[in-house]
Amino acid sequence: MTASDAFDSWWAELAPVGRSGAGGYRRFAWTAEDASLREWFTGAAASLGLDVVLDRSGNAWAWWGDPDAHGPGLVIGSHLDSVPEGGAFDGPLGVVSSLVAVQLLQEKGFQPARPIGVAMFGDEEGARFGIACAGSRLLTGALDPDRARSLRDGDGTSMAEAMSGAGFDPRQVGRDDEALRRIGTFVELHVEQGKGLVDAGRPVAVGSGVWPHGRWRIDLEGRADHAGTTRLRDRSDPMLDLSRLITEARSSAERNDALATVGKVAVSPNAVNAIPSHVTAWLDCRADEEAAVRAVLTDLRGFGPAEESWTARTAFHAGLQNELASLLGAPVLATGAGHDAGVLANAGVPTSMLFVRNPTGVSHSPHEHAERDDCLAGIDALSKVVEQLAGRP
Amino acid sequence: MTASDAFDSWWAELAPVGRSGAGGYRRFAWTAEDASLREWFTGAAASLGLDVVLDRSGNAWAWWGDPDAHGPGLVIGSHLDSVPEGGAFDGPLGVVSSLVAVQLLQEKGFQPARPIGVAMFGDEEGARFGIACAGSRLLTGALDPDRARSLRDGDGTSMAEAMSGAGFDPRQVGRDDEALRRIGTFVELHVEQGKGLVDAGRPVAVGSGVWPHGRWRIDLEGRADHAGTTRLRDRSDPMLDLSRLITEARSSAERNDALATVGKVAVSPNAVNAIPSHVTAWLDCRADEEAAVRAVLTDLRGFGPAEESWTARTAFHAGLQNELASLLGAPVLATGAGHDAGVLANAGVPTSMLFVRNPTGVSHSPHEHAERDDCLAGIDALSKVVEQLAGRP
Repeated sequence: MTASDAFDSWWAELAPVGRSGAGGYRRFAWTAEDASLREWFTGAAASLGLDVVLDRSGNAWAWWGDPDAHGPGLVIGSHLDSVPEGGAFDGPLGVVSSLVAVQLLQEKGFQPARPIGVAMFGDEEGARFGIACAGSRLLTGALDPDRARSLRDGDGTSMAEAMSGAGFDPRQVGRDDEALRRIGTFVELHVEQGKGLVDAGRPVAVGSGVWPHGRWRIDLEGRADHAGTTRLRDRSDPMLDLSRLITEARSSAERNDALATVGKVAVSPNAVNAIPSHVTAWLDCRADEEAAVRAVLTDLRGFGPAEESWTARTAFHAGLQNELASLLGAPVLATGAGHDAGVLANAGVPTSMLFVRNPTGVSHSPHEHAERDDCLAGIDALSKVVEQLAGRP
Repeated sequence: MTASDAFDSWWAELAPVGRSGAGGYRRFAWTAEDASLREWFTGAAASLGLDVVLDRSGNAWAWWGDPDAHGPGLVIGSHLDSVPEGGAFDGPLGVVSSLVAVQLLQEKGFQPARPIGVAMFGDEEGARFGIACAGSRLLTGALDPDRARSLRDGDGTSMAEAMSGAGFDPRQVGRDDEALRRIGTFVELHVEQGKGLVDAGRPVAVGSGVWPHGRWRIDLEGRADHAGTTRLRDRSDPMLDLSRLITEARSSAERNDALATVGKVAVSPNAVNAIPSHVTAWLDCRADEEAAVRAVLTDLRGFGPAEESWTARTAFHAGLQNELASLLGAPVLATGAGHDAGVLANAGVPTSMLFVRNPTGVSHSPHEHAERDDCLAGIDALSKVVEQLAGRP
């Protein structure tokens, strides 16, 4: 079977799972859709002769060779879950490309010098319980198991209840040294989220790291009152502060060469004829340089931003980056998005990423896309990487 | 029983119904709280020897005397429902004051020359189904029964389903000529929403009419994308348009001597790390002069505002206004708030209002308040009005 046939076949199998009426995907952790995706992954791995094992936190690993006897091994893979109304590529492209690469290497008679694992991480997007990379963070111990189990989704269901409902025992969740010991190197292939490869005119890049990034909560207080009777001069309207926040976040980001986004807002009481008593807004801010993020936050300090999360710059393994860039003749790019690769890198695993060109740069949207030829170029690059890193004696 | 004892007693009975943990009220149409309020009204009326009848749309009428045999009568009253986290006075002050006025007149042996009705209108605030004065609009035919029945609340429950759940047959809803024929005159007492009486240094005013007012929906389109990876210049972020809308609505209102409020916003997908694909905002705009409202909408035409409702200036009955102002020696005020009195006036019923002083002007808020002495002054004024209008031979 050719790479394109294998890719097309698996891609077509995944296409209908969790697809919404609006054309996007709703694939959330520990749901029926998640179970379908896990079943698909197990079946695809079985067709390659690989058994799938789960770690203590529900991440799935399909090993070619025995990592306990002959490891640590080389791991490739990504995730299958999505944001609400997400696209088809963010996550699945890496998992499918990894399976196709293994199939190609098997067919050409490649004999791995060390075990090769294909990983499917759980709950990468955090769409249901609010914590991104929950599967890999639990695996490495970066996320406290008690905190994770007690996170609740929008319907009030805890992660522990959701796991139990999916037939997975939540009591075992937590750092898994046995699973970690098996990972000698991790390479995650992912669709680019941005237009760096479009600008470079290239189909594939090697990742250098993840930008420093964080989230802040901004509470804007006012006084509830009747919209039809309260004189303008008597009002305390927090919506006016929201307007200033949105505008000033944008202009500060422009000045400081950063990204700043107000993407989530909660208005209380949110009634047409009521001046709000309270508006809460969330700010997402990232930049290539931590100083740029700090400069934006300094500009916005009058709004009293409260830090909800902060991740310093994650640098992928420099030697590995240089080796892959040289092997592939590919450019090197940093990314503003968090990934399981970043979590593993922060846990000391030698890690790299491959990015596949995204013609519009759009992601987390039904319009997210990669051209089929670029996907096949990504598979070719990943296959070369596996031969290089797992072919050594 | 004195007026103050009767007022205190009924006020204390109502105080706990639908009270939220935050100290405001959540009394929405066709809920368990609404049923409690209706039960209370029926009991209070029964203690005055009055039976309560419902019209076709669920508004409740307690008649002293037979309006079919001796009508049309004089109706006083207001509503008991609230906005989300509303105050205790908006609505209930008028209903309780009307019951106390009837009790006082009964005790002093007043013999009505025509029937006197106390009305409790249903669903005045429109908090659940989005249409203000739904009860009186259905009564007069200003709201189409099919449209009303199919309105849905935030949980997807239709008004018809909510009515059925409360034991009220939704099939009968609609203009009720029999109920309308009984109303010769309507006088609604209401807490002032604003500070006109504070400025005038007086406890009670007579209403002259309701400002022209309307609601507009503004749909702001963007393109969903990843907040952490999309360059600022590649974004189409509707939150920036929301910011401009809020600021421009306020500044236009200041220039044009109008009130303009953006009190409700819906963001999609409303995720911290997603540039929104869509923001919907609602504009409430009112002014003493219709031209001022139109000028604000002209300033905002670039945002494409779509009219959801429009109510032209409502003038209460001029002869009645002059008679009551003269009787009470009270000032005359217009209001920016809609009322059931406005709906009845627009249906041709001779209508007036009495306003009771609000020391902060705040309403639609837990901080809404009226001093007890001013409430008693309102009851005294309402009693004089009833003696004058229902004491004629």
